[in-house]
Order: sequence, then structure tokens, then C-alpha cells
Amino acid sequence: MSRVLTLAAAQMGPVGRDETREQAVARLVTMLKDAKDRSADLVVFPELALTTFFPRWWFDDEAELDAFYETDMPNDATRPLFEAAAALQIGFYLGYAECVIDKGKKRRFNTSILVDRSGQIVGKYHKVHLPGHADHQDWRPFQHLEKRYFEPGDLGFPVFETQLGSVTDARIGMCICNDRRWPETYRVMGLEGAEVILLGYNTPQHYPQAPEHDHLNNFHNHLVMQSGAYQNGCFVVGTAKCGMEEDCMLIGQSCIIAPTGEIAAMATSLSDEVITARCDLDRCRDIRDNIFNFDQHRRPECYGALTKQR
Amino acid sequence: MSRVLTLAAAQMGPVGRDETREQAVARLVTMLKDAKDRSADLVVFPELALTTFFPRWWFDDEAELDAFYETDMPNDATRPLFEAAAALQIGFYLGYAECVIDKGKKRRFNTSILVDRSGQIVGKYHKVHLPGHADHQDWRPFQHLEKRYFEPGDLGFPVFETQLGSVTDARIGMCICNDRRWPETYRVMGLEGAEVILLGYNTPQHYPQAPEHDHLNNFHNHLVMQSGAYQNGCFVVGTAKCGMEEDCMLIGQSCIIAPTGEIAAMATSLSDEVITARCDLDRCRDIRDNIFNFDQHRRPECYGALTKQR
Repeated sequence: MSRVLTLAAAQMGPVGRDETREQAVARLVTMLKDAKDRSADLVVFPELALTTFFPRWWFDDEAELDAFYETDMPNDATRPLFEAAAALQIGFYLGYAECVIDKGKKRRFNTSILVDRSGQIVGKYHKVHLPGHADHQDWRPFQHLEKRYFEPGDLGFPVFETQLGSVTDARIGMCICNDRRWPETYRVMGLEGAEVILLGYNTPQHYPQAPEHDHLNNFHNHLVMQSGAYQNGCFVVGTAKCGMEEDCMLIGQSCIIAPTGEIAAMATSLSDEVITARCDLDRCRDIRDNIFNFDQHRRPECYGALTKQR
Repeated sequence: MSRVLTLAAAQMGPVGRDETREQAVARLVTMLKDAKDRSADLVVFPELALTTFFPRWWFDDEAELDAFYETDMPNDATRPLFEAAAALQIGFYLGYAECVIDKGKKRRFNTSILVDRSGQIVGKYHKVHLPGHADHQDWRPFQHLEKRYFEPGDLGFPVFETQLGSVTDARIGMCICNDRRWPETYRVMGLEGAEVILLGYNTPQHYPQAPEHDHLNNFHNHLVMQSGAYQNGCFVVGTAKCGMEEDCMLIGQSCIIAPTGEIAAMATSLSDEVITARCDLDRCRDIRDNIFNFDQHRRPECYGALTKQR
């Protein structure tokens, strides 16, 4: 029984601040269809795919901030994407800002969902590793207020077993942007048997705290995903929102990475672009049964420091 | 106050089964002097640098096996290396097989030591992640009996603060060979503030369980060390024993890696070769105070799975 999936990364060029949800969703639907034409079973869209990357601004006006969050999913604006997925029998990963009303209090998360080929939400993830800061930092050319606008994820790193294409039991994990830099992210999901880790990102080319590393940004982007894939014997699909978005240049190079750490496909533009790769999920075992056989080789008794609060 | 060190990796070509300790040590002393001529403050020698990589053979004769282990350090054969280090005021890392008699029982470890510029042993490490197998596996072209010939390290991943060159408080961690593939290795030492992680390796070009990955061996070697360096904001010095050793080809490409993950120096032979790089330990802070600021960004409450026994 073949366990081959065709995975797609649907990279987005910039989303302007004045772009409507409907306009963004229309772009996603176009790429969903493109991916389906190329036999894709699952499409990965970026982090915060429905709006511009709004944590780059400080908002005094709460209503202005609220406008970037979704309170229901699907909603009127995004329903066409879910309907297209069901019609085309294709799954997707979507990142967006979520506001949940919990006991009368707003809770805001940087969220991704896994939608199966019937258009149903089968998994949800809340970003754990929020980068940036919570205070206004005047000296920066742009803010990075994720620590202000989101609370840290409360769902851990769940892995979902779902049907995709002809594979009835694909084990899919999710993370978002900065999560990909932390080896713990991949390892927690690797221990749960993830075969594919999906992630979207919005990564500025310029890192204000260490601008002397700006030229390394694409290298670091791939380094962390390639090592995460190899060290856990899983596929990684990383999808950018990229290009010059509201005066902030975001890196691209979305990619599909094999369990060997090899880049199987990579976007080569800074605009809307679909890349695909055939991925045999059974290849995960080449790594996981051997060099990274966790049961045989891990030594958790030496890892105590990893879970201590500091 | 400058915190710049010159680090060296002293790669070794093959060590034959009939090569004596004295012969191996003479090669090490030659490279120690070469490194000193190039201003090195610390030299990293390979794993099991004093002998051939003996876990490739099954031994029925216990005395034959015992002959590969050191019971004292320094001993008559290795003392010239310690004396040269003290005379030249240069530190070193050395890997060797160690047999400790504990309550009348032999305990065998794959060991490395950190020796300071006065020729004193200031740190010891016992390899934690033992690869390979404990049983005889006839189908293999060569055995990999580390799980038979060593017990797993019992010292954790200690970090030693020591004087090297003009730096009075260099924070040095150690690991050995297969340890470098596991992100936990670097992270445990990163949490202890390691600025330089030293490691030696003996890595066959051919991996019998997955020969279809043989061509990726050098890529994987660098991938794990580069990501470990970047994700923990530390230097990594990885030193090979390499070349055709007793019919087994071992990879080379020893390297010195910056906290950015960049390869600052790399060996380009499969024989005895010293490489050096100037390493400013304060550059660790560019990474550790920012993108991988552990206190600000890690989420240990989500990492519970990492330390659970399976």
C-alpha cells in the first residue's frame, strides 16, 4: 500500500494592509487549484495568510487591532477556500490570527489549522514560540509585537492522524514561523511520530537586533528546517509570505524538505508561487528506524535541563 | 578585555591496528606544535585518537579488547603530549577508550578530556549517545559495537569554565561523535552557557543500514553541527579521524563553526591536518541575547515529552 503524498507549499507575495480578506482568499483559492492541477494532496499556506503581518505596528486603537483577528473559522470570507478544498478533495494548512472569547475575555493566538480533503478542520495549533517584544521600541525601523498581540500557545505540539490522498493514516504536525528555529518543536512532534511537519512563516530580511546577520537569513531559515527534518526523520514543508510588504522585506525560499534533510523543492520568487514534491511517507523510516531510532539511542535521563524552568 | 581565542582542529588520518600509542601520540604532538605555531590556544583531537576504531571488530578474547583501553591518564605513552601542552601553554581535547576499575568491576567508557594550558586535566566527559549494536551482526561489512564495548556516559554534559589563552573564563563543553547528531546534546550545554563545544568523531562513509544515504554523510555531518552551533549561539569544533582505516573509509571535513552556523574553517584532506580560526567568544552573545534568548523565548512547559522515558 503506497504511502506517497504530493505535498505543496503555496507561497504568498506580500499582502497589503488595505487588502481585504476576500482578496487574500481569492489568491489562496487560485493556488489551491494550481496545486490540485499538479496532483497535490495537501497545500501549506503561510502564517497570518489572510492579512498583512500586523505585529509590525503599534496600535493604540483596540478596534483597529481587533480587525486583524478571526473570531470564527470558517467565516464568510474564508468559506470559499474550504468549499474549494472539499470540491477538489485536497487538504490544507492555513495560518491566521485568532481571537477567542473565553469567559468574556479576549484571548488572541497566532493560529494554524489543518483542514482535510472534506473541508473539515481536523487539527488546530497555537504558536508556542512567540518572538519579538511586548513594549513599544522606538529605535526599531518596524515593531515585532507578537508578544503583545498573542499569548503563547496552550495546545502543545499535537500530531494529527488523518487521511490525505490515498494515505489513510498520515501523521501531521504543525508549527508556525519562529517555532521552526527551536529543535524542541520538531523533537516533541517527532516523539509523537510526526511524518510531516507543516509551517508557515513571515520573516523579515532585516533583523534589527543583529543586522550583521541579515545576509544569513535564508541560510538560517533552511538550516533549522533541514536539521529538524533530518534529526526527526520527517518531511518539513515551510511556506513564506514574502517580498516587500508595507515597506518591510520578507524572505521567501519556501521549501519542501525530505527526511534526509535534502531540499526537494524550493520557491524561487518573492511572489505567489506553488511548489510541489512527491513525498513517500515510508521514507521517514529510513531515518527513524536507524540513526535516529529514539527508543534505542535517546538518553532522556541526561536531558533533565531541557524541561526545567529558568 | 578581548575574549578572542584561536581554536584548532587537529584532524588525523587513519590509525592502523598495529600502530602503537607512542606512534599515535607522536603524531598528536607534531600537530600540537603546528597549532601553536599558528597561535592556537586550544587543539581538538579526534574521538579514540590513540588507537584504531576498534568497535568495528568483534573480540572473543577479552585481553585483546582490553588492550585498546587506557586505565590511567596521563600514562607513560601519553605523557609527552601533556608535557608538550604545558611547555607550549596550549590546551587540548583528547578522545580515548577508558577502562575504570570500580569495586573490582571493569567499567568502559568512550571518553574525552579537556586539558588546560598547564597540562592538567580540568574536565572529563563520557559519551552519552552510543551508536551501533551490542550483538554480532554477520551481515555487516564491519561491526559497530559501541553498545557492547562501552557503557552510556554517566557524567551528563558538563560545561567547564577554564582559562585558555588570555581568556580567563571560557565556557567549554564536550561531546563525542554520534552525540553531535542529537540536538539535546547542544541544548543541555547551551543552557549551561557553553561558548565552545568540542567533539571528535570517527564516521564511516558507508552506513550499512541505509547505504542509499552514504552520499549524504558529509552533508549530515555539517548540518547537525551547524544547527547545533546556531541554535545555541556557540562555537563548535568537530575533528575527524578519517581516511581508509583498516578497510573502512571514514569521512573527514573537520571544521570550526561560528555561532552563526557558518563554517569558519574546514579540513580538505583525509590525513593529519590542522585547521585554525580566530574565535571571539563574545560573538556568542549576538545569538544568545537575541533570537535564541532562552529566558525570553523558550517554553519548557511544552517540552515535557523530551525527558520522558519511552
